[in-house]
Amino acid sequence: MSLIADLKDAIGADHVLTGADLARFRTDWTSHYTADPVAVARPGTTAEVAACLRIAARHGMPVVPVSGLTGLVGGAMTTGGLMISVERMNRIREIRPEARIAIVEAGVVLDRLHEGAEAAGLYFPLWFGARGSAMIGGVLSTNAGGSNVLRYGSTRALCLGLEVVLADGRVLNLMSELHKDNSGYDLKQLFIGAEGTLGIITAAVMKLVPRPRAHATATLAARSLPDALALLNRLQEATGGQVEAFEFMPDTYMRRLVEARPDIGEPFTPRHAVNILVEVGATAPRDSTPDETGALPVVSLLEETLAGMMDEGMVLDAQIARTEAQRRTMWQRRELAAEITFARKPAIDTDIAMPLDRVAEFLDRIHARLPDLDPGAETLTVAHLGDGNLHFTVFPARQDDTIADEVFEAVEDVVQDLGGSFSAEHGVGLSKLNSMRRRKSPVALDVMRAIKSALDPEGRMNPGKVIPSA
Amino acid sequence: MSLIADLKDAIGADHVLTGADLARFRTDWTSHYTADPVAVARPGTTAEVAACLRIAARHGMPVVPVSGLTGLVGGAMTTGGLMISVERMNRIREIRPEARIAIVEAGVVLDRLHEGAEAAGLYFPLWFGARGSAMIGGVLSTNAGGSNVLRYGSTRALCLGLEVVLADGRVLNLMSELHKDNSGYDLKQLFIGAEGTLGIITAAVMKLVPRPRAHATATLAARSLPDALALLNRLQEATGGQVEAFEFMPDTYMRRLVEARPDIGEPFTPRHAVNILVEVGATAPRDSTPDETGALPVVSLLEETLAGMMDEGMVLDAQIARTEAQRRTMWQRRELAAEITFARKPAIDTDIAMPLDRVAEFLDRIHARLPDLDPGAETLTVAHLGDGNLHFTVFPARQDDTIADEVFEAVEDVVQDLGGSFSAEHGVGLSKLNSMRRRKSPVALDVMRAIKSALDPEGRMNPGKVIPSA
Repeated sequence: MSLIADLKDAIGADHVLTGADLARFRTDWTSHYTADPVAVARPGTTAEVAACLRIAARHGMPVVPVSGLTGLVGGAMTTGGLMISVERMNRIREIRPEARIAIVEAGVVLDRLHEGAEAAGLYFPLWFGARGSAMIGGVLSTNAGGSNVLRYGSTRALCLGLEVVLADGRVLNLMSELHKDNSGYDLKQLFIGAEGTLGIITAAVMKLVPRPRAHATATLAARSLPDALALLNRLQEATGGQVEAFEFMPDTYMRRLVEARPDIGEPFTPRHAVNILVEVGATAPRDSTPDETGALPVVSLLEETLAGMMDEGMVLDAQIARTEAQRRTMWQRRELAAEITFARKPAIDTDIAMPLDRVAEFLDRIHARLPDLDPGAETLTVAHLGDGNLHFTVFPARQDDTIADEVFEAVEDVVQDLGGSFSAEHGVGLSKLNSMRRRKSPVALDVMRAIKSALDPEGRMNPGKVIPSA
Repeated sequence: MSLIADLKDAIGADHVLTGADLARFRTDWTSHYTADPVAVARPGTTAEVAACLRIAARHGMPVVPVSGLTGLVGGAMTTGGLMISVERMNRIREIRPEARIAIVEAGVVLDRLHEGAEAAGLYFPLWFGARGSAMIGGVLSTNAGGSNVLRYGSTRALCLGLEVVLADGRVLNLMSELHKDNSGYDLKQLFIGAEGTLGIITAAVMKLVPRPRAHATATLAARSLPDALALLNRLQEATGGQVEAFEFMPDTYMRRLVEARPDIGEPFTPRHAVNILVEVGATAPRDSTPDETGALPVVSLLEETLAGMMDEGMVLDAQIARTEAQRRTMWQRRELAAEITFARKPAIDTDIAMPLDRVAEFLDRIHARLPDLDPGAETLTVAHLGDGNLHFTVFPARQDDTIADEVFEAVEDVVQDLGGSFSAEHGVGLSKLNSMRRRKSPVALDVMRAIKSALDPEGRMNPGKVIPSA
């Protein structure tokens, strides 16, 4: 039988899409990448995923796992391969509040998990713009980050257990709920962040955390980036490490924001160079219970810290969110980043990380170098400053074939020099294969290739992604 | 040339031990395991480790990495292999307080890192009895746990970067300081907890955390284990998750403690069944600054929580440490566990993990089953209760060849049934190979073997450890 017939036989004809039904799988959120799969299989269970993988193995067919299609690096695209979408595996199997865990299938949309955790009085702390579409399978496969990594870590730090189907269809059950387990190699770590090149994640045990009872949220202008970092350190000290988000939006970001969305408005007039969105989450009752004046202690801590730094001239201006609506506006300014970045084309966008105290130096050096490459280029920066993670975008004036690569090279030169990484939270996919080839040590690449061949000897799992050819 | 001559040539004759000089390497802390290496090489640099591994490869010689010899599972033992000790690589290369990192070599003793961090105003939160001898290389290779995992995680959670020498002598440099880095597979995860079976860890970038400015420490008697867990949850809520340690010592433990060390004394008379050592660490100034009555707020929080639960009858008695000396006595009672356990032979000791709320059930079930195996057996339990990690020891009355295996089987049956693990924090080494064979899924074992052959095709790195033969 043909591949398609075998698949229809295994999971039902309705769940094997071909022809016009493939339309929504032909590109991803970026619309920069396109896909042309032979079919999309939509298995409903782990056993069906295993059956699809056995069939693909029999037919020697490359397989690309797909979930929410919100990736930014082309990791779920394929030409001629079989897409396996986990979108029908969308059950939250169980939430156990007393153990603070959620057992979820790979097709659960991130926001559904947020809602499920909230209904159980808890919080799932992975938070980024695409949360309404991104699914757990993709989130794990890219080790996604976002705005709360500062306090709670990336996806890897939130995963206790994993279920994976291997290239040959065997199911690897690692669904542990334990906080300590040293029974051999910690295999789940291999599949988190592997972008589907080693197997398909079908389910996971995720940690939940206490839901903050109150937030203290502010937008402020700092005199400089070092002053902003001093604020972060003082706030971490004052709150015992409860800062959840520390986001940097420079003046150029604010200008583009109001151009794109004049309805939202800027925080400060005149505009400042270094704008920070900071949020502290209060989980203890004494931080979140109003005092005799009606003030929330966590908000008072933030106010006092900001007031002290205004007296010292390190903070130039600040707004505290007094209502949930004001808080939402502050976050909206930050979360429009993707829309602002991708509204203008061509855009050369990066996702880089460096030690926190080198961010200012990075910006100085890259802005000094860029005019040599393209005097008319403009830039846009928005950053998870608390993680040293910048989304630095260049809008080139030069419209030739090499400008993008020249900009990437220039950025990577500075990043490497500062001990940073060319890929912080979006993954590698197709878009950073060149960077992997140029910047990753040959020994590390060799070890990755050895692991890849050990687990996927035929090289059929998401081929051509993450690891550049030798 | 011979292996020994080659090694002497590469790292100096003084640093290749043979004959009588091997004495201190012939056993480990347990004295249960013995070693008979052909030699011990003591390289002083990463380049020398690489040279030793190239020489071993040339001679087809098995290699066993050795650091502090405080392991409990025989992981550093060998008969006929070459031991490579990292003890001379004992430099703290750098501590950068502003980045909260320490860059250390594999031979740094854990307590030296504690001292280095303290001198920088910070804390390295990995804490267990053998800290005066255990070295970072072994700590990473076993993914060591201890008493502060509840708040800070196991070793894996504290490692940002790693340097590893592979079986063929190539150096894999993964010494990142970044908190976000998605540039391909996270290779360091493979080597953490691999017990030297995939390569030799030579250096690492470790996270430091703010040093608690004050501790609130208490020993208390709870009415039951569920009541103790209720206390843990209330304290986590009240303090915003600042509980650092939550250790369980039952009445049988206290009895053995006073037998072994009458000078230390018991906390309560009459003796209670469920004794807990709890410690909260206050990192924020407002928790650690005495109020107008001279009381530390963090201590008041603990007192109030305990007082409330005494009123409800859930806590039967409690002592708060008022001085550092009292705090030390409380910790000494807990840290004598290894001495008490290993003082009496034969002892069948385990290191098991389970969901926190199943610990009481585990103890009930195993104590119901044990008399069928050995009516005269006695038991000893001490637990990192906050992690669901028990050290459950059986002192058998039966003195035959099969009792140990029967007890392990009985314990593992219950543990597996409760969703637990036969190995929580000590690793596998030699001692848990049978458990790996019996309890780990065949697919997981196959994947471990595939990774092992990919990175160590000749099977020379710490052979016979961690992964049972197929």
